[in-house]
Amino acid sequence: MSRRGPRRKTTDTLPALPPHGLRVVPLGGLGEIGRNMTVFEHAGRLLIVDCGVLFPDEHQPGVDVIIPDFTWLKDRLDRIDAIVLTHGHEDHIGGVPYLLRERPDIPVVGSRLTLAFLEAKLVEHRIKPRTVVVAEGDRRKLGPFDCEFVAVNHSIPDGLAVAIRTAAGMVLHTGDFKMDQFPLDGRVTDLRAFARLGEEGVDLFLVDSTNAEVPGFTVSEGELAPAIDTVFRTTKGRVIVSSFASHVHRIQQILDSAQQHGRKVAFVGRSMVRNMGIARELGYLTIPDGLVVKDLKALDRLRPDQIAIIATGSQGEPMAALARMANRDHPVSITEGDTVLMASSLIPGNENAIYRVINELTRWGANVVHKGNAKVHVSGHASAGELAYCFNIIKPTNVLPVHGEWRHLRANADIAIRTGIDPERVLIAQDGSVIDLVDGRARITGSVPAGLVYVDNMTVGGATEESLHVRRTLAEEGVVTIVCIVDPDTGALVEDPEYLAHGFPPEATDFSSATPAIQKALTKASNDRIEDLEQLEELVRRAASSAVHRAHRRSPLIIPVIVDA
Amino acid sequence: MSRRGPRRKTTDTLPALPPHGLRVVPLGGLGEIGRNMTVFEHAGRLLIVDCGVLFPDEHQPGVDVIIPDFTWLKDRLDRIDAIVLTHGHEDHIGGVPYLLRERPDIPVVGSRLTLAFLEAKLVEHRIKPRTVVVAEGDRRKLGPFDCEFVAVNHSIPDGLAVAIRTAAGMVLHTGDFKMDQFPLDGRVTDLRAFARLGEEGVDLFLVDSTNAEVPGFTVSEGELAPAIDTVFRTTKGRVIVSSFASHVHRIQQILDSAQQHGRKVAFVGRSMVRNMGIARELGYLTIPDGLVVKDLKALDRLRPDQIAIIATGSQGEPMAALARMANRDHPVSITEGDTVLMASSLIPGNENAIYRVINELTRWGANVVHKGNAKVHVSGHASAGELAYCFNIIKPTNVLPVHGEWRHLRANADIAIRTGIDPERVLIAQDGSVIDLVDGRARITGSVPAGLVYVDNMTVGGATEESLHVRRTLAEEGVVTIVCIVDPDTGALVEDPEYLAHGFPPEATDFSSATPAIQKALTKASNDRIEDLEQLEELVRRAASSAVHRAHRRSPLIIPVIVDA
Repeated sequence: MSRRGPRRKTTDTLPALPPHGLRVVPLGGLGEIGRNMTVFEHAGRLLIVDCGVLFPDEHQPGVDVIIPDFTWLKDRLDRIDAIVLTHGHEDHIGGVPYLLRERPDIPVVGSRLTLAFLEAKLVEHRIKPRTVVVAEGDRRKLGPFDCEFVAVNHSIPDGLAVAIRTAAGMVLHTGDFKMDQFPLDGRVTDLRAFARLGEEGVDLFLVDSTNAEVPGFTVSEGELAPAIDTVFRTTKGRVIVSSFASHVHRIQQILDSAQQHGRKVAFVGRSMVRNMGIARELGYLTIPDGLVVKDLKALDRLRPDQIAIIATGSQGEPMAALARMANRDHPVSITEGDTVLMASSLIPGNENAIYRVINELTRWGANVVHKGNAKVHVSGHASAGELAYCFNIIKPTNVLPVHGEWRHLRANADIAIRTGIDPERVLIAQDGSVIDLVDGRARITGSVPAGLVYVDNMTVGGATEESLHVRRTLAEEGVVTIVCIVDPDTGALVEDPEYLAHGFPPEATDFSSATPAIQKALTKASNDRIEDLEQLEELVRRAASSAVHRAHRRSPLIIPVIVDA
Repeated sequence: MSRRGPRRKTTDTLPALPPHGLRVVPLGGLGEIGRNMTVFEHAGRLLIVDCGVLFPDEHQPGVDVIIPDFTWLKDRLDRIDAIVLTHGHEDHIGGVPYLLRERPDIPVVGSRLTLAFLEAKLVEHRIKPRTVVVAEGDRRKLGPFDCEFVAVNHSIPDGLAVAIRTAAGMVLHTGDFKMDQFPLDGRVTDLRAFARLGEEGVDLFLVDSTNAEVPGFTVSEGELAPAIDTVFRTTKGRVIVSSFASHVHRIQQILDSAQQHGRKVAFVGRSMVRNMGIARELGYLTIPDGLVVKDLKALDRLRPDQIAIIATGSQGEPMAALARMANRDHPVSITEGDTVLMASSLIPGNENAIYRVINELTRWGANVVHKGNAKVHVSGHASAGELAYCFNIIKPTNVLPVHGEWRHLRANADIAIRTGIDPERVLIAQDGSVIDLVDGRARITGSVPAGLVYVDNMTVGGATEESLHVRRTLAEEGVVTIVCIVDPDTGALVEDPEYLAHGFPPEATDFSSATPAIQKALTKASNDRIEDLEQLEELVRRAASSAVHRAHRRSPLIIPVIVDA
């Protein structure tokens, strides 16, 4: 999720786009895994594909989510014809509420499940979106954008790729996808459509790069069955499963195994209960009658080996069900004989949190089955082998790898080039890059603002790089408040300053070594007739910080408080 | 590295140890990966095996390292006969300086390379240790502890297991080990010795659990040669390698490949230069004449394809050479055509830092070869397959899995039990557990203090759980200093309080909604004749925090400053 390193600086004025040209502006997902968003401009109109969130890392304390920077759209909102959503994952739909705050009536186009998940989320934001349901094979004119939707397989059902035809040519955007040849719902990524579009001519191919570094092929979801079955067959106590609340097919496998081995199932965790309700209602999840009970209470009468619980928290989120079970802060109290099945990935950055949960569960006596010791997860993204297939089937004339950190985009570009695509026409761009497709040739022509926008308690811009820097300093070094009571006439200290230290070890309470420096600074200031409070505070801060550093080898945030006696 | 979850509480009084009994007290490494330390007590004397550090995670901001808790040793220091070091890794020797601060003349026993690495480190601490060099096959009486040293293979040369004979029986402690059957130095883990000791009778087996969850066998270090050779053969530009500065055999492979492909080598990074100097001097590293140049300047005359650089920073440490190259803050400036080979593991918790470095290097045009996309690392620890061999060769009567988080200890215990060892005699203990071996039977009989001791700028106890909690709050929520100027007689505010917020978004500056609550609290306090400053501050804090939370949905640290007008 790095955002540093060489960066094209924003160009104040973009070159004019010829009427027959198409402009592509990725506002998220290039240079990071998350907040995927691409804006297409043609004939003065805009089409947006996806609008997701990025989750913060340990350098962004107190941040809830990170969304794309809408600055470039602010004065163009009325020109947006639609938002097309490729699937229902947070990193593709999570930013929609914030965009709809800017203009609530933008039509939102997507598959049934995708829109159902979006609407459930928008309820929290009290937004009722204008939705347009589409399915694979459908073709829709959205302003000047003639969109055709193609079935793709992913770790959530009902994913769509979108082919966008304009006078500038055809763009194919895969969204997130993999090429499982034996998906549980039989809905494979439609390579025949990819081939047909390739025959017609794909002028620009935007392709998922997440697994481009992974050699070979992503195995089939169905291959998890043996490991899952073993857990359900051999566990004497309860089976507690955690997985992504959106991974309908994974949950389906769990349910089937529970049914087969005579266990009743309870869903635990708000998003799990909500999503499974939606998926069942829409027919994406098949639940045999009587398998799933209403709530945990309904399990009380059953023997442990008749119980399965499907919970949220597969990434070790401290507030989610599984972490709370691990901390004995949940009605489900883990005991000897329970088996916990973590049927999900281990997203980089979450390792510590996840292993913390695994260790606690193990300490209570649970047997924990996870990706690290059993085949209980497969990726939702196409690996290098499948990507090569795509390039060879589609033979695009220009390629723009999307959805990945720099290393993933680079790896995907290399695959494209190895399949024979002109290296000049394989573009590695980043968030904010402006790519113009003109006369069949894609070129980077400039860039627009695309910084990280932090959301904090649903407040957009709830944190800035500067406030985060202060927060990191506070965490690393602590804070010292210095109360200086000064003579209003002489400006000199009337008594020794009071030092209030926080985030320091208990014994590190003596800051008096700073007093002479502060005294000196204030005296000098009054001699120099400096009376501006901010200036005085800055002088005290400087005087104190070097003394504090000498005494404690730390550089805390120093808050001077200067009060007239 | 979790420390939470069910925990035996320290027993005030330990049961008396019978004269023919042996007491084993692990003070680190059980329930965590790191700060390995075990204390053995017999006939009133003590022997310590290893004394390492643990590295902090994101929940321990501002902490340098974490060492074992020496509390239980404090009044027994004079009874310590020796510290035995199994090998030279930080998590086994890093705590020695802090223990020697307590008593500098404790003899330190270890192999030549181990002691050489220790002495180099102790120079920084201005400590000259009393060392006793031993080698595999040696037998030494250390007080009542009759120690025999056994060769083990690990990711650093010259590792030793130690068999400790006392009247209580024989204990075998593996230290860290793996069972590479084709090690570069031909020094295999001495299974014949393990077998012989097994024949004699191992009453208690302390065994490395790090890879107990990993099925199968750890592949041989030599199997990395093809991938390393490919990098050196195919790279047109410079080859820049990062690896652990202690991984002498890995570096040897790099040097051999560089030599073979006509590249000169420069070592970069203080610990890399230091350790390779020591390893060469002692004959653990073979450097062909003229291969390694004095410094980077000596490379200036060479073509890129004649250059190899071996640097520190394989874990993405921001201050190490590789991260600084990635940030263009280093004489070696990465360019198109360079290949960076990260020939090391990816320690859980370091992923974000490492991927950040990989992305930056890639942005500058480097090709980055790492564990994720090539076979350039093998583990230094025995996997489940090898551990099974050990249990079957040694057939110990009691087993104590060591070196691992709870999940690793549990997995290792399960392997022991599957090889037929009485489950009653396989003990899962944790830091501070007291295990008594009496009449051939090991039992947990109590526990001693074994909390995390934080080292901060070389100050032991430089942070406490409480100060870390404050630091986390500061990072997540920020801090608000509230300056209240009150009438000394009435105790009422003479003017509205001043609010100084830090770690808040710029626009979040209005805290005035807290003023009425503070005013009310102070008035009530004066009516109640409350004059104690701390009490008043607490009242202001409570009154303000709820108002601040209502206004900003945050719970910052609130620092009340009450000053008489």
